[in-house]
Amino acid sequence: MAGPTRVVVIGADAAGMSAAHQALRRSRALGRDLEVTVLESSGHTSYSACGIPYWIAGDVDDQADLVARSAGRHREMGVDLRLEVAATRLDLTRRVVHYRDGQDADGQLSFDELVLATGARAVIPAWARDAGGGLIGGMHPVKNLDDGATWLGLLGDGLGDGEADRRPDGRRAVVVGGGYIGIEMTEALVRRGLRTTLITRSEVMSSFDPDMSARISAVLTKAGVEVITHTQVASVGTTDDGRVREIVTTGGQVCPADVVVLGVGVTPASELGVAAGLPVGRSGGYTPDARGQLADGVWAAGDCCEAIHRITGEYVFVPLGTHANKQGRTAGDNLAGGDVRFGGVLGTAITRFAAGEHEVEIARTGLSTAEAAAAGLAACSLVTGGTTTAGYLRDAAPIATKILAEPGTRRLLGVQIVGGRGAAKRIDTAAAALWGAMTVDDLAGMDLSYAPPFATVWEALQLAARRLADRLDSGAVRPG
Amino acid sequence: MAGPTRVVVIGADAAGMSAAHQALRRSRALGRDLEVTVLESSGHTSYSACGIPYWIAGDVDDQADLVARSAGRHREMGVDLRLEVAATRLDLTRRVVHYRDGQDADGQLSFDELVLATGARAVIPAWARDAGGGLIGGMHPVKNLDDGATWLGLLGDGLGDGEADRRPDGRRAVVVGGGYIGIEMTEALVRRGLRTTLITRSEVMSSFDPDMSARISAVLTKAGVEVITHTQVASVGTTDDGRVREIVTTGGQVCPADVVVLGVGVTPASELGVAAGLPVGRSGGYTPDARGQLADGVWAAGDCCEAIHRITGEYVFVPLGTHANKQGRTAGDNLAGGDVRFGGVLGTAITRFAAGEHEVEIARTGLSTAEAAAAGLAACSLVTGGTTTAGYLRDAAPIATKILAEPGTRRLLGVQIVGGRGAAKRIDTAAAALWGAMTVDDLAGMDLSYAPPFATVWEALQLAARRLADRLDSGAVRPG
Repeated sequence: MAGPTRVVVIGADAAGMSAAHQALRRSRALGRDLEVTVLESSGHTSYSACGIPYWIAGDVDDQADLVARSAGRHREMGVDLRLEVAATRLDLTRRVVHYRDGQDADGQLSFDELVLATGARAVIPAWARDAGGGLIGGMHPVKNLDDGATWLGLLGDGLGDGEADRRPDGRRAVVVGGGYIGIEMTEALVRRGLRTTLITRSEVMSSFDPDMSARISAVLTKAGVEVITHTQVASVGTTDDGRVREIVTTGGQVCPADVVVLGVGVTPASELGVAAGLPVGRSGGYTPDARGQLADGVWAAGDCCEAIHRITGEYVFVPLGTHANKQGRTAGDNLAGGDVRFGGVLGTAITRFAAGEHEVEIARTGLSTAEAAAAGLAACSLVTGGTTTAGYLRDAAPIATKILAEPGTRRLLGVQIVGGRGAAKRIDTAAAALWGAMTVDDLAGMDLSYAPPFATVWEALQLAARRLADRLDSGAVRPG
Repeated sequence: MAGPTRVVVIGADAAGMSAAHQALRRSRALGRDLEVTVLESSGHTSYSACGIPYWIAGDVDDQADLVARSAGRHREMGVDLRLEVAATRLDLTRRVVHYRDGQDADGQLSFDELVLATGARAVIPAWARDAGGGLIGGMHPVKNLDDGATWLGLLGDGLGDGEADRRPDGRRAVVVGGGYIGIEMTEALVRRGLRTTLITRSEVMSSFDPDMSARISAVLTKAGVEVITHTQVASVGTTDDGRVREIVTTGGQVCPADVVVLGVGVTPASELGVAAGLPVGRSGGYTPDARGQLADGVWAAGDCCEAIHRITGEYVFVPLGTHANKQGRTAGDNLAGGDVRFGGVLGTAITRFAAGEHEVEIARTGLSTAEAAAAGLAACSLVTGGTTTAGYLRDAAPIATKILAEPGTRRLLGVQIVGGRGAAKRIDTAAAALWGAMTVDDLAGMDLSYAPPFATVWEALQLAARRLADRLDSGAVRPG
């Protein structure tokens, strides 16, 4: 058969565009003829979803700054990018994608290779919807650029006539969800001057162990945030014009609310593939192999996928831009004739809460105690305190490091960090050690950098590793 | 033979005291009877030599803050610590250390196990000495606490009568040596308001590749420092009262100087062992094995030693507190009946120059291009620019990352970082990857942390690794 290999990519954010460009790059390197069409249901491409809370907080000048690469630039680079074109059905037998464009016209595209990069969508709880099925006024998720613009409108325009009278003590915010988006939006709202309540169904940052979560909550509380843990939303009280007025918790607490962040998580947008019979995991995300392949000539990458956890070997749903870029690149390379592997995920993550003098940086990698237990791995752990710089320097900040290791093999299982400015990015050192399946002794012994403005002479991570190693030696640490 | 094992440690700083305490800890764990005597020629113990430039700069409130553990505390913990007692001769046959105490009385101590932890001393060039063999007034090294106190005196007390008239434009400083001490003292002097000239015989920070050194020099120059490279000191002009007045370079340049930092390096203080016939390497440092042992019952640790470079397998002289602590601990553990190994060094190092708005962080690990060549290793390299945080945030700082890898095996050989605030501590991630003998593909693929205030979505280190990997794939990077 003559003609180029026809690649269709569905989704034009990190994973999809990484796949598109890497497919072109690899095919050129191999001298193959390949054309790439990308369908994107929204009007946006290649933007930083993670930057949206900082845009809302006022740290980013303009929405355009969040766009890493414009649609025009993608097209100049050889990708046939079609915005506001929604894929509606896959026919894997005939190898055709059906779509509907911005003018509601239907069409279809044939493909030789298909990349599913449809991302994830924010979960909208039932209590957040009005009788018509729409969102109650003042409530909104934080997922894409349009959501960011909505939030700027909600916060910038005030609440309309008469609202100033309703709350003599200023506007009130409720953040529902204590994960990354919850923490980052809490920062944004506090910095914008709103009295803020954070409601979470378990602990704040529940991917951390509870003792580390408690350190995070303590900083939020000091900063004036009302933190309500182990609680959900029971009902929503609204004003006469249908806007949110208060949140009532399952504990019976009434929280005044003029705006509500819906930060209860995201779910893989995998409906197209599910309808076509493609495999998904427990989260509903696709389960591609390490080459990114899902079925013959069908590839998947990014937030619509699960990925193999490098320690447990199990599929997990960890939707992050870092993985999306790498997975997209892997799929694009392989479908064009390359042979590369995505190495899996460790669950590495980082964020902060910083408002005025109140600042906490947090990061984790590998398994938490609960995750290790769920994977059937015995884990010993220890929390060690230290400082980010030499303790005698005036800007030394505290850092607490929790390390988990397997008692018999002494293999590192996970690391969690909570501390002041400069603490959290150390997680990458731990991630590198976990990536290489190193032991707690390797981490304690390796040649890490030291100078007084940057670390203590026993670097905080290594001090923690050494202490845990000593406990393992003495048998003083027991599994659990 | 009855009685405890008698351990004598010579030197009471990082290596010696780590050895002393770990020997006690291990012997207690093993139920063995062991006593430790430590001889220290100075009056100080366990202080942060690396903190001295920051003390001089004004960042540390008090000399006592630099002392990690006092002599009294060491004694409480069971170490017989004797200050101002200088070991004068080793008799390895009779297993005796001869010493002279603070009252000039001679004595001797028998040992079963001996630890040499005598550190290093600053190199004093011939041109820095006056006719009597003493230091010319205003010139001083920066090595120990007494040096720090001397510098505070030199800078704090002015230069005596009439000095203000001599330099209507303020006091002048010359720093000789462009290594870590040179950079850190340049920061201290600039921050204290002195017009400063830096003279170095090769490049600034010559353990970096020249293209990276140039980036460091550029920031120094912008901050008003006169940087003179590839130059040495030819002669010194002094005042009538014997104080330094100017430095004349080998290039014939006359540099006004009221104070001169002697930062031309350190040399292992290994005379005792050399006189007793113990082995030393090219630098004159002892060459203990990975257990810290130098001869039967004789151990060595810290700045008086060379250490095995983990990549080349060769002994190198890299005197740093981080190694001293680990080596001391290793020797102490083993002499008391343990069996542990020091894993070697990578040459990891970090520092900064920060004065007002001018700030550069620098770090390196593994081999430079020159070091790789000297070791007979082919190295391909690439410098990649990026930012420390998401580029759209206002405090994003530039970061340049140079990665060296071996073309055939794709093994990482070294990483160098020069950048703004937040750039340099990333070197630890590279060090962990080097420690695990990982490839450039491992570094590019691993699960590192991302959030906009901390990194770009392709973390700077990984972007650099990926670009180098791509060049290796395409054959576009050639060795050299």
